[in-house]
Amino acid sequence: MPQPNKIFLLSEHQSTYQTLLAEKNLPGLSLTDNPNDAQIVLADPPLLSQRLDEFSQLDWVQSTFAGVNTLMSPELRQNYTLTNVRGIFGPLIAEYVIGYCISHYRHFILYHQQQQNRQWQPHLYTSLQSKKMVILGTGSIGSYLAKTVRAMGIEAIGVNRTGIPTSGGEFNQTFHINELTSALKQADIVVNTLPSTPETLYLLNSETLCHLNQAILINVGRGDVLEDKGLLLAIKNRWIEHAILDVFEQEPLPKEHPFWRLPQITLTPHIAALSFPEQVVEIFAENYLNWRDGFTLNYQVDFDKGY
Amino acid sequence: MPQPNKIFLLSEHQSTYQTLLAEKNLPGLSLTDNPNDAQIVLADPPLLSQRLDEFSQLDWVQSTFAGVNTLMSPELRQNYTLTNVRGIFGPLIAEYVIGYCISHYRHFILYHQQQQNRQWQPHLYTSLQSKKMVILGTGSIGSYLAKTVRAMGIEAIGVNRTGIPTSGGEFNQTFHINELTSALKQADIVVNTLPSTPETLYLLNSETLCHLNQAILINVGRGDVLEDKGLLLAIKNRWIEHAILDVFEQEPLPKEHPFWRLPQITLTPHIAALSFPEQVVEIFAENYLNWRDGFTLNYQVDFDKGY
Repeated sequence: MPQPNKIFLLSEHQSTYQTLLAEKNLPGLSLTDNPNDAQIVLADPPLLSQRLDEFSQLDWVQSTFAGVNTLMSPELRQNYTLTNVRGIFGPLIAEYVIGYCISHYRHFILYHQQQQNRQWQPHLYTSLQSKKMVILGTGSIGSYLAKTVRAMGIEAIGVNRTGIPTSGGEFNQTFHINELTSALKQADIVVNTLPSTPETLYLLNSETLCHLNQAILINVGRGDVLEDKGLLLAIKNRWIEHAILDVFEQEPLPKEHPFWRLPQITLTPHIAALSFPEQVVEIFAENYLNWRDGFTLNYQVDFDKGY
Repeated sequence: MPQPNKIFLLSEHQSTYQTLLAEKNLPGLSLTDNPNDAQIVLADPPLLSQRLDEFSQLDWVQSTFAGVNTLMSPELRQNYTLTNVRGIFGPLIAEYVIGYCISHYRHFILYHQQQQNRQWQPHLYTSLQSKKMVILGTGSIGSYLAKTVRAMGIEAIGVNRTGIPTSGGEFNQTFHINELTSALKQADIVVNTLPSTPETLYLLNSETLCHLNQAILINVGRGDVLEDKGLLLAIKNRWIEHAILDVFEQEPLPKEHPFWRLPQITLTPHIAALSFPEQVVEIFAENYLNWRDGFTLNYQVDFDKGY
């Protein structure tokens, strides 16, 4: 009789994952508390990155996050298969982006304040119709976003590493990353969905942002794609009218950081797309059966590319 | 040589309309300051309703608003053709509804307050995906809204006077107004787009609202479709979790009205869909040529139906 496969859990939502996995009752899989017994780890990357060497039999890590940059440091081992979660964030990111765009253009915070003061005062506004949104990254999130904003009458312009349009035709135009400034010049709204990689580090800096003109900037990718001091200059020079930031180089954002108090910045605590454990466990379950039967796993991360 | 046709303007945006009309340079049309000379009036209905008897040669009124209920009072004359503006509000209403739904479910006001306090605290939320939205009214605004929210993954349920689905197939289901309670029982979100008519007066009252269960209610139709005390009871009993109101029986909403200070109510000063004068003048210009040439006018209001 074959030994059962052993999985180790490492998450801020440990008990939720334990319950959901037990409910799935996956064949030949059992939980272990001993890192040395585990071939499989289901983990939040920031927690795992500190304990990666404890797993002597490690074969496969299923990340509970989309962002795996904390596992990409060159000093960390890479002799295992890493899979992340994808495909479940598109709708959540699209809601975040569309919601905050409407909230901005249509003065939701101002009306909230007026209500506190019992003040009836309409303000002019512009519609999303015909605005141009430049989306950095044309992967599953960027494509889903493009498709959804087009239903709101927005023109979607994609920027990626090839300049090749997506097969689904989600974008009105697609630019090569080398043509970034041409894309930015047209933008009413810029949305970064790019992961953290050596190529994307500080891609949005004063040299690129200066091509914007009173644009809205939304960062739902990774914090270090945007250079803090470049953003501050862009706000000062009105290249950017308002920035909506969900991700930061350091999280939680330090209390003394200037972003907290700038009226031109709206910030949220990395909630644009939460990994709902139910969805992560669905992805894990399908991958587990693939792994057990020797098939290719879904959503494998390439350690060279970093995503 | 034929006499030029004379138009009288009566709007809160008088000078804007004057400029836009001059730019259009419509053949055979000139402006007059004398009500007795005008065959045509372009007017905001609340202003016109007080002066309707001054126009001895009146043939056609183009309303600058969609809402013409102030011209429907039985004591006012009806011996003229009345046209209103339609078709331009769909996108604005859709943005308002979607923006406020996302803002509610995803805690935008709470995050704004946290930012003021430099507080990093994520909160759980639900997505719009798979929520059910009951839309009262399946005309141009309701249909546009349905089509747009379906692109966000929302199921759209229409309610109208016939129970017959729209020809564009915008709704997942369509109910007859007599089956209103069956529709409301399913609702996560209810949006009223209905005009003010004798049939819609206080349609949403404690007897109908009691079929809701912790729903979101959005009123972008007319204020008197919703009974104030019915809403207060619905909030108290949690039939309604949150109400987003853009229209009221009396506008501006009186300072002493209880709606201002209820945390379960978000209110805005009738801005869900402003008539942008540029769009109104486009509609007027096309109608003017129809009128001059004896063709049927677009967007005629039926005095019997009230819309």
